[in-house]
Amino acid sequence: MKSHLRRHAERVVHITAALVCALAFTTTITQAADDPLPSWNDGKAKQSIVDFVAKVTKEGSPDFVPVAARIATFDNDGTLWAEQPLYFQLFFALERVKALAPQHPEWQTKEPFASLLKGDVKAALAGGERAIVEIVMATQAGMTIEEFDKIVQDWIATAKHPKTGRLLTEMVYQPMLELLGYLRANGFKTFIVSGGGIEFMRPWTEKVYGIPPEQVVGSSGKLKFEMRDGKPVLVKLPELDFIDDKVGKPIGIQQHIGRRPIAAVGNSDGDQQMLEWTQGGGGARLMMLVHHDDAVREFAYGAESHIGTFSDALMAEAKKSGWTVISMKDDWKTIFPPEKK
Amino acid sequence: MKSHLRRHAERVVHITAALVCALAFTTTITQAADDPLPSWNDGKAKQSIVDFVAKVTKEGSPDFVPVAARIATFDNDGTLWAEQPLYFQLFFALERVKALAPQHPEWQTKEPFASLLKGDVKAALAGGERAIVEIVMATQAGMTIEEFDKIVQDWIATAKHPKTGRLLTEMVYQPMLELLGYLRANGFKTFIVSGGGIEFMRPWTEKVYGIPPEQVVGSSGKLKFEMRDGKPVLVKLPELDFIDDKVGKPIGIQQHIGRRPIAAVGNSDGDQQMLEWTQGGGGARLMMLVHHDDAVREFAYGAESHIGTFSDALMAEAKKSGWTVISMKDDWKTIFPPEKK
Repeated sequence: MKSHLRRHAERVVHITAALVCALAFTTTITQAADDPLPSWNDGKAKQSIVDFVAKVTKEGSPDFVPVAARIATFDNDGTLWAEQPLYFQLFFALERVKALAPQHPEWQTKEPFASLLKGDVKAALAGGERAIVEIVMATQAGMTIEEFDKIVQDWIATAKHPKTGRLLTEMVYQPMLELLGYLRANGFKTFIVSGGGIEFMRPWTEKVYGIPPEQVVGSSGKLKFEMRDGKPVLVKLPELDFIDDKVGKPIGIQQHIGRRPIAAVGNSDGDQQMLEWTQGGGGARLMMLVHHDDAVREFAYGAESHIGTFSDALMAEAKKSGWTVISMKDDWKTIFPPEKK
Repeated sequence: MKSHLRRHAERVVHITAALVCALAFTTTITQAADDPLPSWNDGKAKQSIVDFVAKVTKEGSPDFVPVAARIATFDNDGTLWAEQPLYFQLFFALERVKALAPQHPEWQTKEPFASLLKGDVKAALAGGERAIVEIVMATQAGMTIEEFDKIVQDWIATAKHPKTGRLLTEMVYQPMLELLGYLRANGFKTFIVSGGGIEFMRPWTEKVYGIPPEQVVGSSGKLKFEMRDGKPVLVKLPELDFIDDKVGKPIGIQQHIGRRPIAAVGNSDGDQQMLEWTQGGGGARLMMLVHHDDAVREFAYGAESHIGTFSDALMAEAKKSGWTVISMKDDWKTIFPPEKK
């Protein structure tokens, strides 16, 4: 027979365990009752997100999707963080050109470097994607991935936006941070699928978006494995491997993820094929495009922009296909997170 | 003041919650006490695994590795499943050549297809890696990834080993299934990094190894995005994109995962660079090579084999670098899991 003391001790353990459990239950209920998307105004965009998540997570429903297949892909520039007046990666590349110019006297007369070094960014980028790739490749080649990672980390820690003066890592969209968290809380795996450089994003996406390096898909250059002083290194070659834009996005998704997303969010013509690919899978799907229509709180641009072009054809496609167009002006209560002091 | 009934009901709830909690605690304790690697004989190999996991998971220890960085990469052929008398993917490719031969009259006289169709596999593969790639590419080109996925799934559901008569998916190593599970239970993310075709592995790795498609890295062909009857498809092109073998393994790891593994397991010369890359990261690292030295229960082969070659140079490298060589004969109590009825 149990002693009184032992019975008392057991009761204490039981009560403690019960409290722990009760607390866990309470927290869950409170979270569910709270609005998981507080920076989104009530409206079609927010509703389409909430409806979609409810459908695919409801067991037994015809639209139910098992956790393993809950893949959501997000463009980065203009979708998760701002992209005006220039893709932020270009700020980085321009600084690298200046830093490396002394070692490259030929850049003084060779485009797009000559224009860049004269401060004429517009002329330098007149060559379009080819010029951008050339700049990016030239400023990375020969470095090991660890060296490059360190340079990006050092730079991103202090790099500020030329207009707002805020850290670039604070020029991210608060409603998107909430959407990422909401999807993950509902069993989704969130991926970045961006035209930006994969090695440029990976050093900071986990901290800023909660997206780990292995869930980042992007454009990339070729790598070479070699031994330097008896230590293995991966060296960045001045040769393009993959452009993760337009038709490249579904291909990048297949190569890296190997499953079709059930949700995809973009903001430009470069994202159309990713959304088509997502929708083509059938069943409940969420396709969304961020429309930059808020000149006061962010930037207003569309078809005319050569950074993050949102063409009239894309808008027509969105309407025809039933994709959700997010108006930053109307759908977002807040654009950026509060400044860190 | 609470009624007696309500107090009674609350006590029932508390006791139930306490029981649930107590049960959860008990299960955890039981699991920890049990041997997580029952198919491994006590010895250096098993000890090196257990020691390594203890070190990197012990908070506050100098070797502690946060969960996010606990990346483990496994070769597939000869490491997770058998590879004799031929890489299993070749059984698949040979069947595809036969199935597709009527549409390719030119194969009757063109190598390596002509030899294959005559049943002379050895002559067909005399061309080495190039011949293998040619066969694999030719039997996949033009198909959409969904069509290919379906063909692989149908085939793997019934494909049997020519010697043992067992399903190929049962020709997996029981000790490795336990190792994968043990690492995952300790917060590791487990990846396959194989010279095999990425699209050939993805349809079944989750079911067989618990490794989802997005954690499979392999060799791949180029893809093309296009519209077929108004639906987006990804078509396999007859063009090699990436060979995930030898120096390709660290490159594939960097491209897909973007972090350096802290544990890597292979079995052949094709895995040397993956192990070097893993070890090069510094800190506690686990590098292991499976040695096929059990002619009775599996196959015995090494330097002389042209499938899964384990050269004398690799054995010397393993000794020099302190890599763990797993003797299938001595270190494994069981080789294959029990047959499913």
